Amino acid sequence: VSLFLDFKDCIFARRDTRHFLPDAVPEKVLLEAFEAAHCAPSVGLSEPWRFVVVESQSTRKVIYDNFLNVRNRAQEQISSSEALRIFSSLKLEALRDAPVIVGVFCEMPPPETFTIGVQGTLDTVTWSCACAIQNFWLSLTNQGYSAGWVSILDFEVLSAALNIPNTWKPMGIMCVGKPATNYDKQPMLQKLNWKTRSLNPVVIKV
Amino acid sequence: VSLFLDFKDCIFARRDTRHFLPDAVPEKVLLEAFEAAHCAPSVGLSEPWRFVVVESQSTRKVIYDNFLNVRNRAQEQISSSEALRIFSSLKLEALRDAPVIVGVFCEMPPPETFTIGVQGTLDTVTWSCACAIQNFWLSLTNQGYSAGWVSILDFEVLSAALNIPNTWKPMGIMCVGKPATNYDKQPMLQKLNWKTRSLNPVVIKV
Repeated sequence: VSLFLDFKDCIFARRDTRHFLPDAVPEKVLLEAFEAAHCAPSVGLSEPWRFVVVESQSTRKVIYDNFLNVRNRAQEQISSSEALRIFSSLKLEALRDAPVIVGVFCEMPPPETFTIGVQGTLDTVTWSCACAIQNFWLSLTNQGYSAGWVSILDFEVLSAALNIPNTWKPMGIMCVGKPATNYDKQPMLQKLNWKTRSLNPVVIKV
Repeated sequence: VSLFLDFKDCIFARRDTRHFLPDAVPEKVLLEAFEAAHCAPSVGLSEPWRFVVVESQSTRKVIYDNFLNVRNRAQEQISSSEALRIFSSLKLEALRDAPVIVGVFCEMPPPETFTIGVQGTLDTVTWSCACAIQNFWLSLTNQGYSAGWVSILDFEVLSAALNIPNTWKPMGIMCVGKPATNYDKQPMLQKLNWKTRSLNPVVIKV
């Protein structure tokens, strides 16, 4: 069942959510979101997306500590005091409080196999995973849920914590749940005065 | 106006299209697709997507020659004669015949600026662009059009042909138009016997 009768409304309503209600996410909702992810385009039909649902509370704690370390190091790079004030006040993840957290990894094709489309750059494989993440996110939005993509992490430490093989490239953690706010229909970083959205995309003609 | 009343139908119907009808793509359709792209999530609200609509026929020719060179080199890496036979028969782009072709580039943030979320990897910026490409593609699908992502290209040669600044990382060319086929509701590479889709995504719990 779609929450949005109009497809465009769903695209517009999707938010990078950091504030969730405590409501559980039904298994059915997650399955539908994973099914949408699996409909993403993939370079050479590589289907490289791998999802790791983190159920262990102790592993959550390790991931949160990982985030805190990287965030604290990042903070030292901010020179403007006003930027530092805003940055310090931002909630940039929901690793402890989101009902569900999902690690996303990209399994790189073995070097000896021939994959159509990676000739320009092997990065196309991770771009396929990003498309899967976007489908996952839109499906959650369509079902009345949302997600937040956390990438302020030491990715090597993340892979080690989850015992991920080194052929799986980490892409971050998706925090999933029912949103507590839609940030007045704008990106959270705009609502909280970090940065303003541009009105239109850059499109040039040659 | 949505072609699909159900959001899921649109996600399922999106295809990587290489076979287009000659029908023109109305400006309105493209604008709506760019608007959808601009609703994508972006790391630190960087909005790094840059679209280049290629109107020059001579530039199209240069891009097609670029593709041919890279495709021919790739072909030499295929050892199995059966794989070579199938590969040789595949239409992997629509650079000459798609009504519209659009280069997608990712403007990397200047090293001196602080961007939230790139601390794990700067690749997150290109992942934002991939999400924008997916929104663009879904919007076209929703409007009765489609796209094909061409990445069998020498990206440096592509940037030079389009006179793109070196801070814009090339992500490929989207061929856009009205699809001539839906490949029987499956990926073209499966329909044409290159590779079989897996039934379900890999989801593990830890």
